[in-house]
Amino acid sequence: MTRIFADYELESPVSLERAAATIAGEQSSGTFVRLPNETDDLRSRSGATVEQIVVEDVRKTPSLPCRLDSDRFERGRIRLSWPIETMGPSLPNLLATVAGNLFELAEVSALRLLDVTFPDAFATANPGPAFGVAGTRALTGVDTGPMIGTIIKPSVGLNPTQTADLVADLVRGGIDFIKDDELQANGPACPLEERVQAVMRVVNRDADRTGKKAMVAFNITGDIDEMKRGHDIVRDAGGTCIMVSMHCVGLAGMLALRRHSDLPIHAHRAGWGLYSRSPDIGISYVAWQKFWRLAGADHLHVNGLSNKFSEPDDSVQASARAVLSPLFENGQGLEAMPVFSSGQTALQLPGSIAAAGSQDFLICAGGGIMGHPGGVAGGVESMRQAADAVASGQSLGDYAQDHPALAKALETFGGRVG
Amino acid sequence: MTRIFADYELESPVSLERAAATIAGEQSSGTFVRLPNETDDLRSRSGATVEQIVVEDVRKTPSLPCRLDSDRFERGRIRLSWPIETMGPSLPNLLATVAGNLFELAEVSALRLLDVTFPDAFATANPGPAFGVAGTRALTGVDTGPMIGTIIKPSVGLNPTQTADLVADLVRGGIDFIKDDELQANGPACPLEERVQAVMRVVNRDADRTGKKAMVAFNITGDIDEMKRGHDIVRDAGGTCIMVSMHCVGLAGMLALRRHSDLPIHAHRAGWGLYSRSPDIGISYVAWQKFWRLAGADHLHVNGLSNKFSEPDDSVQASARAVLSPLFENGQGLEAMPVFSSGQTALQLPGSIAAAGSQDFLICAGGGIMGHPGGVAGGVESMRQAADAVASGQSLGDYAQDHPALAKALETFGGRVG
Repeated sequence: MTRIFADYELESPVSLERAAATIAGEQSSGTFVRLPNETDDLRSRSGATVEQIVVEDVRKTPSLPCRLDSDRFERGRIRLSWPIETMGPSLPNLLATVAGNLFELAEVSALRLLDVTFPDAFATANPGPAFGVAGTRALTGVDTGPMIGTIIKPSVGLNPTQTADLVADLVRGGIDFIKDDELQANGPACPLEERVQAVMRVVNRDADRTGKKAMVAFNITGDIDEMKRGHDIVRDAGGTCIMVSMHCVGLAGMLALRRHSDLPIHAHRAGWGLYSRSPDIGISYVAWQKFWRLAGADHLHVNGLSNKFSEPDDSVQASARAVLSPLFENGQGLEAMPVFSSGQTALQLPGSIAAAGSQDFLICAGGGIMGHPGGVAGGVESMRQAADAVASGQSLGDYAQDHPALAKALETFGGRVG
Repeated sequence: MTRIFADYELESPVSLERAAATIAGEQSSGTFVRLPNETDDLRSRSGATVEQIVVEDVRKTPSLPCRLDSDRFERGRIRLSWPIETMGPSLPNLLATVAGNLFELAEVSALRLLDVTFPDAFATANPGPAFGVAGTRALTGVDTGPMIGTIIKPSVGLNPTQTADLVADLVRGGIDFIKDDELQANGPACPLEERVQAVMRVVNRDADRTGKKAMVAFNITGDIDEMKRGHDIVRDAGGTCIMVSMHCVGLAGMLALRRHSDLPIHAHRAGWGLYSRSPDIGISYVAWQKFWRLAGADHLHVNGLSNKFSEPDDSVQASARAVLSPLFENGQGLEAMPVFSSGQTALQLPGSIAAAGSQDFLICAGGGIMGHPGGVAGGVESMRQAADAVASGQSLGDYAQDHPALAKALETFGGRVG
């Protein structure tokens, strides 16, 4: 396959057929007026092709402000394709093609990019995740079951020593994974280098004692040089993960970091609501996470079931499954690890396993761990027991009968998820 | 000033006051539950502050899907502020703060970031545009008046020789500026290096003859190494500008390119509709262009008056003025050059000058130049004459009486802009 395919949901005041033709023209050789040197041969060689049009609905008013008048707005799906010859296997340039100047076209009154299918050349030209699920399990020593994690809170305001004290509690409680908040990177109030040194002293000491090293995702978001420096600080202190807010650094930032990095890259999707909150404009995470996996993300946030944000559970499920789905059929799956978070407790564990169709995920809980009556150890234990309940085919209630940490979680957090 | 201020338009099912408090908490030290170590001291040191709340409207239904039920959705504006101590003068990390996990909060049913005010520390820590208006004028030899430019079309499909042939026509016609289409970067069908060599042979020869070198913005969008290599190819061939699709490379990409570059950076905003098309979710260009100027963009796209897209003229005007407005009051204005484009002809020149409040802009026309009956030379001349008409205080119609190129433009394109 040497063509790129992109699927869109869209709405149009001029029929989906005309809208599809406009997008195909605008996003390839065309312009509004056909030019003398845009020959048929050039069109057939470089033009985008409308592969499919499915009208699903007709509405009387436009979903987004639209300067073309109509009383008939067709809504549905289209599939377009492009020859790879025009942009090559370049992620930034593909993005300009499939998600460039189309959202503002007058011929659409709603547009969402739903999916992108990449030819194999992208697998060869782009790095993909260096660690993924297997590499993350190897570094943490968590061979089976979901990895249990948490986020350092308060998000900002702790100094390096206070952060390390909190991490000491967490590792003592047996946590697998800890991450910085996305608001905490390298500000003057909690410089990255001091934080890494203080935290890794605690983590390394615990690893020496227990033989199992908690993975801490340090937020090194910044410009390229800052990220490289941050990565080196983490690696040299014995750290095993770096975190970056992907929308804040961009695809070129992720690619550069991946090429430099010796550690798994934990991709935070802060700002994702901008792409996802409206049903009428945006990009589906099914499409979006593919770009970031190709660029090198090992862990990708997918929100959580019954989360505190606006995302419904079916969307969370689709995202988690997408992150775990092979990207290419030639053996290069480039699978990454989905990260569930936001208001998570032991109660969401069975649903998360079912949603992911797998136990190959990270689940980060805040209150669900720190708010457990048995402290961090009780919180972590309750989440492991919830996964064990699933593995043994029992309901949480039944399994809790002789598993006190889980029982305490059900008692404490039971009201939260109905 | 050591605080960052951000203005939002928002709508909320729980009152603007509660929504503002939620955003301020979520985007600083807070989480949904107040934690034991989130002391009052920590809050006052690291917390975001709600500076202002203005309710402008109350609606009965939510503008975006929202899982919190209500029959009263307040809509209006809020202003928040953050201490710079928490993130430092880092653009990527500031972005995670002011445009991070807030768009998906259940407490908002619409949210747009309208403006950001940066403390002076950002001017010191970030490069800003190296060339801006003055540097671009110096390189092109266009001392006064708008710079007249065009885009190579068809967007894709021409090989390097065909591209150079088209550029030969354009420079012969006296054009000031030429840019690649954002869909044309470094694909196998028209490799960047060959294109640069072929095009610059033509441009350099013309410059030797006329003493005036047309500025060609070569699209070097790609990963960091590709962009650096692309920049070097352009510079070494005597080129004077590079173009990058800013949303495709991200802030870290722009910062890295700026630190490497010896040439003005032409920032293309392909994909901008995602941020701007909905009245209920997104980021205003008034806010957004500030990030990219700080990161180093010299030219910033602002769409054009009477454009072929969905953006109304008042939004184009606000964007153009924003790009030309000083960013800091300490003498570091970091002004960039607005770029008008999309369906432009001589007819939009007076309006564009009025909109920008200045002649310090680039205006790119396709059909308005290549479709002029006098060819490229006639098209370019008609646009210069339109600017001259403004300078002499005459209407286009009056000035066209003894300026045939302008007269032809009015005759040919007159129907287009009513």
